[in-house]
Amino acid sequence: MPVNLVAPDPKSLLPVAGVALGVTQANIRKPDRKDLLVIRLDDGANVAGVFTQNRFCAAPVVVTRQHLSMLDPNASIRALVVNTGNANAGTGKDGLAHARQTCTELAHLLGCTAVQVLPFSTGVIMEPLPVERIAAGLPACLADLRADNWLNAAQAIMTTDTLPKAVSSQVKVGGATVTLTGIAKGAGMIHPNMATMLGFVATDARVSLPLLKSAVAHAAKNSFNCITVDGDTSTNDAFMLIASGKAGMNELTDARSPDFIALRDAVTQVARQLAQSIVRDGEGATKFISIRVEGGRSEDECRKIGFAIAHSPLVKTAFFASDPNLGRILAAIGYAGVADLDVEKLDLYLDDVLVARHGGRNPAYREADGQRVMKQSEITIRAVLNRGTASVTLWTCDLSHDYVSINADYRS
Amino acid sequence: MPVNLVAPDPKSLLPVAGVALGVTQANIRKPDRKDLLVIRLDDGANVAGVFTQNRFCAAPVVVTRQHLSMLDPNASIRALVVNTGNANAGTGKDGLAHARQTCTELAHLLGCTAVQVLPFSTGVIMEPLPVERIAAGLPACLADLRADNWLNAAQAIMTTDTLPKAVSSQVKVGGATVTLTGIAKGAGMIHPNMATMLGFVATDARVSLPLLKSAVAHAAKNSFNCITVDGDTSTNDAFMLIASGKAGMNELTDARSPDFIALRDAVTQVARQLAQSIVRDGEGATKFISIRVEGGRSEDECRKIGFAIAHSPLVKTAFFASDPNLGRILAAIGYAGVADLDVEKLDLYLDDVLVARHGGRNPAYREADGQRVMKQSEITIRAVLNRGTASVTLWTCDLSHDYVSINADYRS
Repeated sequence: MPVNLVAPDPKSLLPVAGVALGVTQANIRKPDRKDLLVIRLDDGANVAGVFTQNRFCAAPVVVTRQHLSMLDPNASIRALVVNTGNANAGTGKDGLAHARQTCTELAHLLGCTAVQVLPFSTGVIMEPLPVERIAAGLPACLADLRADNWLNAAQAIMTTDTLPKAVSSQVKVGGATVTLTGIAKGAGMIHPNMATMLGFVATDARVSLPLLKSAVAHAAKNSFNCITVDGDTSTNDAFMLIASGKAGMNELTDARSPDFIALRDAVTQVARQLAQSIVRDGEGATKFISIRVEGGRSEDECRKIGFAIAHSPLVKTAFFASDPNLGRILAAIGYAGVADLDVEKLDLYLDDVLVARHGGRNPAYREADGQRVMKQSEITIRAVLNRGTASVTLWTCDLSHDYVSINADYRS
Repeated sequence: MPVNLVAPDPKSLLPVAGVALGVTQANIRKPDRKDLLVIRLDDGANVAGVFTQNRFCAAPVVVTRQHLSMLDPNASIRALVVNTGNANAGTGKDGLAHARQTCTELAHLLGCTAVQVLPFSTGVIMEPLPVERIAAGLPACLADLRADNWLNAAQAIMTTDTLPKAVSSQVKVGGATVTLTGIAKGAGMIHPNMATMLGFVATDARVSLPLLKSAVAHAAKNSFNCITVDGDTSTNDAFMLIASGKAGMNELTDARSPDFIALRDAVTQVARQLAQSIVRDGEGATKFISIRVEGGRSEDECRKIGFAIAHSPLVKTAFFASDPNLGRILAAIGYAGVADLDVEKLDLYLDDVLVARHGGRNPAYREADGQRVMKQSEITIRAVLNRGTASVTLWTCDLSHDYVSINADYRS
């Protein structure tokens, strides 16, 4: 059961002008489920992305990066194609050929070049991609293309997700009301390092490519790069930002303009909601945990400490048990790798409860207070380092029996 | 159920001349169990240790380090005192006072100075040490002092361990047969960084203090620092090496002498058996997994890759399920943080089965072969980087439902 997460209301998901989506059942791994998605873009869209830092980068990530860098400045990306059920990772040269073949097949159907198509895959690693099933499914995707198809698209990219993840918003930019709609998938192997498993956000805003790249990097850093379920960075992470340019506005080209900042922040907000949805739907999650580390010398050290807490199996199982065994949080802070950390300055809060002061148990702390907070489904851990002004906020979930069950059974 | 681990046969545990051990039930946390141990040393022993790198270093670790550094060169350590049930970590100034008070009480009973006593604690973090119960239990420990009391000692330091861990060996050094006997405890919060939760090895060999320090560092690096259960580095890790000097031999003073190398290797072997016992008894463990990373440019990069595999919850749950979902191993190698790793050179073996070649699935690999190995209770993962000559071997266990149960219920 996800933590305080419901399926998106289809009516809340707004079409984005210039963007159509089509899905089908291609039987890639399991029957009777949508598993193939095409996002078709009208001519003239800009597309930017951030990708996994895993050295075993999946074939589709390699090809997507190549196509973005090879694209003729006078051409534009015309489609993204996404399959679930198979990650096409750890598949060597055959995997690259299969990812390219997918693009070629779709380009043929759309009347564009293969470079104008970006491929994405998610699912089991190190198994051959059934490219012929994908090719066979593409015409059905194109027949299904609709602007109001976001919810089906979100469903078609799920793996162990229990609910689809999608969100829309609107913001005033350059005198126009622009729309943003995004989808994401992910529930395990979640410790994005540049992006999550898969996230796609589209807007009809007109934005230059350099600004779009800056917006996607900013949004990823403050959303998908702040979450973790199990500390495993996927081979297939990709977060893509599409700007169709169909809104009636001048192109944004000044990175310091209030209009661009407003758009960038709206993208970040959408990405953050999607990222938090992934944590809420984290494999086996029963609690949504925000970790705020503040008073650090640098954002980097705050991140190290936050992720040490977020990745500790002992902290995560204590939260699952609603047991305020909070010394485990101190231990995780201590081994986070901040070599000169002065633990005697550290204060630790659980929501509003001051648990540890000056690095030791707060004499006024009562177990009953910790217990009260631990029983909640949403909890904030706040570590105050008292040595600087940097801070970060991360989001994670607990570690439950169901996490083990899901990952022990995933392929069967 | 531990993996291929049985309780040590008491007759296999050899007394070490100059070393006596006594235990009692001090009711530190739970009734009806031995929870306090005194290891008394005859005058003239040398003692060296390695300790946790966690910044939240427990009070007894701070005090043990201080006492070792403050010791008068003409005096020697006369006792080690170890309690289970309470880690005396995250306890601030009170914790330091309690650790010192424990030493003072025992020194008073033994007729030595407090600096000649080293304190150790293991158990729950951030709860006040019930020092008065420890003090009250010390006379019973002294009344119980015996040279052949190693098994009781191993039992008295257990926390979530299901079996005591102890081993003896003998080796010819300097014309004499010297004896080594060691005990250790640990089952969770195991990712030692200098030592495990607690390990004590005693020998009757005569070794100079500088050589003893070098031997304990060498042994820790090749034993306790090669294991992980859950990646959580404890606040209380300590591995102590005691040389009573009672064997009829000249003192070892030359670090390059074959006699010292023989002793050092015997210590390492004992430490390695204890360390592997900890993994075999890892919380919820059903499989014992050796991870060998070879062909690396440096030992450091081999360790990074080995620990990334060993810590991945996805790899660990796949092993629990006996599911050869081996792409998860590639993914872990990819995010291990070796920035210039050329994944196309990597070969991956599961025991004798070549799973991946040149970074991709081996065309000759059959799922049935992976399945056969995965069903074993002891499995070796071998990653061959093909870029250098460095190698490491690490040991870990799988992640099961019982790990979650044990750590969700630990304090209750």
